[in-house]
Formats: sequence, structure tokens, C-alpha cells
Amino acid sequence: MEKIKIGITHGYTNGVGYEVILKAFEEPTLLEMCTPIVYGSPKVASYHRKSMGLTTNFATIQKAEDAQDGRLNLMECIQDEVKVELGQKTPEADNATTISIEAARRDYAEKCFDAQVMAPGDDIAESDGLTLLINERMKIAFVTDQQPMNEVGKNITEELLTAKLEALDKVLKRDFAISGPRIAVLALNPEPGHEEEEILKPVIAKASEKHILAMGPLSAESIFGTEAYSHYDAILALYHDQGYVPFKLLTSDFAVKLHISGDALTSAPVQDAELAKAGKGEANITSFCNAIYTVTDILRNRQDYDEAHANPLPKLFHDKREDNRRSAPAE
Amino acid sequence: MEKIKIGITHGYTNGVGYEVILKAFEEPTLLEMCTPIVYGSPKVASYHRKSMGLTTNFATIQKAEDAQDGRLNLMECIQDEVKVELGQKTPEADNATTISIEAARRDYAEKCFDAQVMAPGDDIAESDGLTLLINERMKIAFVTDQQPMNEVGKNITEELLTAKLEALDKVLKRDFAISGPRIAVLALNPEPGHEEEEILKPVIAKASEKHILAMGPLSAESIFGTEAYSHYDAILALYHDQGYVPFKLLTSDFAVKLHISGDALTSAPVQDAELAKAGKGEANITSFCNAIYTVTDILRNRQDYDEAHANPLPKLFHDKREDNRRSAPAE
Repeated sequence: MEKIKIGITHGYTNGVGYEVILKAFEEPTLLEMCTPIVYGSPKVASYHRKSMGLTTNFATIQKAEDAQDGRLNLMECIQDEVKVELGQKTPEADNATTISIEAARRDYAEKCFDAQVMAPGDDIAESDGLTLLINERMKIAFVTDQQPMNEVGKNITEELLTAKLEALDKVLKRDFAISGPRIAVLALNPEPGHEEEEILKPVIAKASEKHILAMGPLSAESIFGTEAYSHYDAILALYHDQGYVPFKLLTSDFAVKLHISGDALTSAPVQDAELAKAGKGEANITSFCNAIYTVTDILRNRQDYDEAHANPLPKLFHDKREDNRRSAPAE
Repeated sequence: MEKIKIGITHGYTNGVGYEVILKAFEEPTLLEMCTPIVYGSPKVASYHRKSMGLTTNFATIQKAEDAQDGRLNLMECIQDEVKVELGQKTPEADNATTISIEAARRDYAEKCFDAQVMAPGDDIAESDGLTLLINERMKIAFVTDQQPMNEVGKNITEELLTAKLEALDKVLKRDFAISGPRIAVLALNPEPGHEEEEILKPVIAKASEKHILAMGPLSAESIFGTEAYSHYDAILALYHDQGYVPFKLLTSDFAVKLHISGDALTSAPVQDAELAKAGKGEANITSFCNAIYTVTDILRNRQDYDEAHANPLPKLFHDKREDNRRSAPAE
């Protein structure tokens, strides 16, 4: 079985991006799990490696198909000198970030790797699809995200909410191997109002006809104020702050941001460029490592799910609520 | 010096209201601090007292001026029989709740007592003035509260925000004895938008001209996600969920809700009627006791503040940032 290939953007070159990448691949654990291809600059990588006395080796490659198992592949997408100014926000570093993201995007579109992971300092760009925040205790997905608050009400249409709810249900089943996932849909208003009556309730009712276990609309206050969130496999938040604020409050180093659009899968640590820590060797790698574990887990779950659902004897496979993982189908 | 008189509404008669009141005044501590006047029904109080084997005595009175120090005064505002159905939501109990709240409101308007405290099951009604949520770690005030989300944008006017900010600054100084209080004003939108540019920034800039230390607009995500909230004496939230959700997540038994309108002062525990616990003797009294401590502290701080500011030699009183409490003015 071929190893999972992961394309990795290098984050903010003046921040902790390279430090986190190099430290994460210092131990062989992650290399046993995937073949990494970092989209970046060998010179900048060497600078960070040397300045912090890191021992991780990497191999420079010029095209993704030259990536080899068992080593950290560094795809050279920036040939020019990039001046590293630790802890500074500079146009040169901004530019280096963009080049890495765009090179990875092009190669992912060409299926040069199976999933994309972003280093600290890169953010998952909004687009179609589903964005999730994940930690040990919860998964939160979003109906809208960066839109202005005064447009949230009109943006939450029956079509959009239905699409997000169905996408979330599918992701929980296929990507997280949860059978019969329970989804809490948050309310928009502090007291039930127009959107609850005209949009949320009808969509939730129709979803249950399709056997989606969606409950709500539920007040964010009661869901997060009473640990009720732990009764649900995922929470569907209607706007950015509604999900991000409780998530950040209930989060540890584990936290991962995930974007799923069709089969395209991108994860990122919930960690910014940490300019103040740049070059000090103090950056935490837990979130970044979990971003990698999350996509590798998802890719394996998808394979199991797709095989099980392609099987001509589907009745052999029973969903088990208690057992979070479906056993692999017999050959 | 006369003791502070506190008017207490009796909460939901089928819930834990009387249990909490009776248990709170079982020990003499609270009675040493204030003279309580409960607006309710002696029969219902006796029912709860007897059914849980509580030992607190109370004295029935017919008008507030008969209240005496050193005992729990029960102002009889419901003469009729009120059937207690523990744990049930009934029209009779709804009615008993309303009668208590209205009787207390009338007497407070007549200055029969100095501050009002509500028992679990009563909620502080919205009105003009300032609502705050308080726990050990933070104070959160609100610009809007129960309004529908799609009206929040248009409700946050320069006038309203200025009024709330000035009221909050005054409350922190006069009621909480914080000199030079730092206030974090939350942002409305995930990315700065119309409201930030046209309303929030100008109001904050003008506030600083009046020596109000308001900072912002700050994203709720960064304020609550990084413990940055601990750098501020209070946080001004723009709408209900923005403040309630993180508050509930960061809250313990201590939490108190406070409403201040002019000199009128009402507090309530952050605790509902707890119907499921009714009559079991298991209700927690911490939040209710803290609701009483909070208003008695505020009334004392106000007295100090007003005396200090009425003093003809105001320069004698220097604000000290480190010293949270102004020392009492010399006689």
C-alpha cells in the first residue's frame, strides 16, 4: 500500500513555520505515516535549521513526482533569495507565503499529493465546501464565516443551510467514521425569531426525513454553557464568532482547522505565525502534528467507507454506535 | 450606621427559589450584612421549609417599613393559596412569580429598600441602564441584548454605544472602586467592516478624549481565546451571544447578573429555577449569596465614592491603579 502523500505549505517565513515543520519531522513517527512535500525555499529552511541547531534533514526536489518515501522532501518553489527577518512582518515574507500556497494549490489540483497541510502562519482560505474546527472535545462547522454580521441573517438561506448540513453529515460519516452522527444546529437569535421559524426549523425537519440526526435550533449559550456540546458529534455554527469564541475557550494544543471541498482536504494548526517566538526554538508542534494526523486518519477512513459502500453485500456491514470505527471489509 | 435593606423576589415557587433563600439566611453571615425583605408567600415559604427540613425562621410582615434587622422578613404579597407543584411549570406559579416581582418593583420605586436581589427563576428584565455579567475573572456589559441578530448592526448607533461606554466607565469607578478602568470594546464583524469604521472606532476615539480607557474594536476570538480578557477591567459586548457564551464557559458558581439603571441596583444569580432539583435540598446557594454580596459591596463603594467626590479637597484623594479600593476618606 502506497504511503499517503502530503503537500505542506511553509507558513510565514519570518515566523515559526519552518521550525514547526523541521521539528515535527525530526522524529521518524510522522515519516512512517506519510510522505511529506514541503512547498518552499531550501535556503530559508536551511537558515531556520541552522539558527536553531535543528538536526532534521531534507531533500530538495524540483517537481512533486520526485518526492520519496522516508524523508522530508522540500519542493523548491522559491529560487530567489528570501531575506529572513525573524519576527518581522515584511512584504518579502508575505510574498514567499503566497508563492508556497499557490504552488501547493496547483500541484494539489494535479493530484500530486493526497492532502494538504498548512504550516503556522498560513490560513485556510474561504471557498466553497465545509470548514471545521476540531479539538478533543468537539467539532464545529460553519454555515457562514467571514461575512459582515449585518449580512449573516440574509446569507443563511434554506439552500445554504441544507447544503452545509448535508455536507457535515457526510463528512462525519465518511471522514470521521461516525455512524448516525448527531448534529446540533445553533440558533441565530437570543429569542427565537424569523430565521429560526422560517429557515432553521424547516431545514432541520427536512433533514430528519433524510435521516440526518440534526437537532435545534439550540442556543449557543445553552450548548456551550452546560457541556451539552459533548452530547453531539458536531455543532453547526451560523457565523464566525459563534463558533470560534467557544472553540478557542475550550481548546488546547490539539486544535486543528480543517477544510473539505469535494475530495480536497486541507488542514492547518490553530496557531498563527507566532512572530514573537520566531527563531527561539520554543514553538509548540502539537497542533501541526495533529493537523497531519487528522488528514491521514480521514484518508484512511474514506478508503474504508468507500470500500464498504461499494461492496455488493452492504448488509454485512452494520453500523455500530459504540464502535467509532468500522472494521475493515474482508478481502 | 443603618444596615443595607435588600428586597428579594421569591423566584419560581415550584423551583429552588425558597430553598436557596432559606438556606442562604440559615447562617447569620448574610443577616449581619443586610436586612432582607422577601416579597412572597408565607405559606409557600413554610411548605418549602417543612418539606426539606430547613431550620431558618422568618417573620411575616405586611408592609416594608415593618422589616426589622437581624431576621428574615417575609413581606406577604400573596394572600391566596398557591399550590406548590414541585418541579412543574404551572400558571399558578407563573402568576406568583409575577406578583412578587411587581410588588418588589413598586416598593423599590418608593425607596423601601436599597437594592433588589432576585431568587433563582426570576430574570432581570431588560430596560434602560446597563446589564453586566460578573464572575471572579471578568465583567461583561452589553450594548444590545435580546434583539434579533439582523437588527444588531443598525441598533448599534454612536449614541447608544457612547451611552453604554460612559455608563460602564462610571459603574466601574463608582460601584466597583476601580480607578482608571480599562474597557475592551468587542468588534462586531470577523473582519473590520462598516460598523467598526463608522461607529466603533470614532466612539472609542471620542471616549479617550474624555479619559475613558476604552480599547478596541477587539475581536471576541482574540479577547477570549488568549486570556487577553484578564487585561481588562470590563468587556463591552455588542450582542447577547457574544458575551453570554464565553461568560458561561468561563464561569463557576460565583456568577452574578447585575442591572444598574440610575441608582437602582438589581442583582440575580446566574441560575434558573432548576425545576429538576426542586424540593430535593440540593440547590447551590453560592451564586445567590454572591448576588447579595455584590450589591452590598456596590452600595458601600458608592458611599465612599460619593463622599470622596463631594469633598472640597478632592486632590487629597489619589487614584491608585494597584489598590483596587479607595481608602475611606478621613472624617
